[in-house]
Amino acid sequence: MSFDVNALKYNEAGLIPAIAQDADTHEVLMMAWMNAKAIEKTIETQKVTYWSRSRQSFWIKGESSGHTQELVDFRYDCDQDCILVVVRQEGPACHTNRRSCFYTAVRDGENVELMKPMCDDHDH
Amino acid sequence: MSFDVNALKYNEAGLIPAIAQDADTHEVLMMAWMNAKAIEKTIETQKVTYWSRSRQSFWIKGESSGHTQELVDFRYDCDQDCILVVVRQEGPACHTNRRSCFYTAVRDGENVELMKPMCDDHDH
Repeated sequence: MSFDVNALKYNEAGLIPAIAQDADTHEVLMMAWMNAKAIEKTIETQKVTYWSRSRQSFWIKGESSGHTQELVDFRYDCDQDCILVVVRQEGPACHTNRRSCFYTAVRDGENVELMKPMCDDHDH
Repeated sequence: MSFDVNALKYNEAGLIPAIAQDADTHEVLMMAWMNAKAIEKTIETQKVTYWSRSRQSFWIKGESSGHTQELVDFRYDCDQDCILVVVRQEGPACHTNRRSCFYTAVRDGENVELMKPMCDDHDH
């Protein structure tokens, strides 16, 4: 059956949450939002493209930072209201320069930092 | 620093998205929603507890189905607006009896089913 971008369910702002997972390490890297057009762009270009709610514009991940996400697999869930993009992540996914945005754990009631920012790399 | 459930950011309905990831296989199992009280219950009981938007009630995952999620690690992201629960999943996470809710991929424009429902098991 052909994929129909309009068969997915969007919230009142026309957005659907998208989880990015690293294809190799299987780390959950980040969660951001897409609209129907961002989904089409992601699938067409294989460059993961979100909708920035703060800037109200398309956000081709890594376009300015170089920390791109190459699409490896596009999946969605049973309720058609959440997306999982399996990606090849260049450098850190997080704007804090950490590999994943989920770098804080709660253990025994305390916030614990699980990873440090990556060092500046010289190949970008 | 102590964890403060009120330091997380909730949407206008008082909810925050929560991604569940399998502690052993690292599969992304599902995404659902929590409110502040569901977060507290999850951390206190170590049984992952969501807020059911359709039923408008707490949803202790697996309470009726037996397909519980034991909390292994509770994490949140850089923007404090998304949760990652690392879990030990009993049986299928999905209500369709599949291990993960993300069982549909889009490949060459077609919907592709990645996994079948699990067989009925006899130990529950």
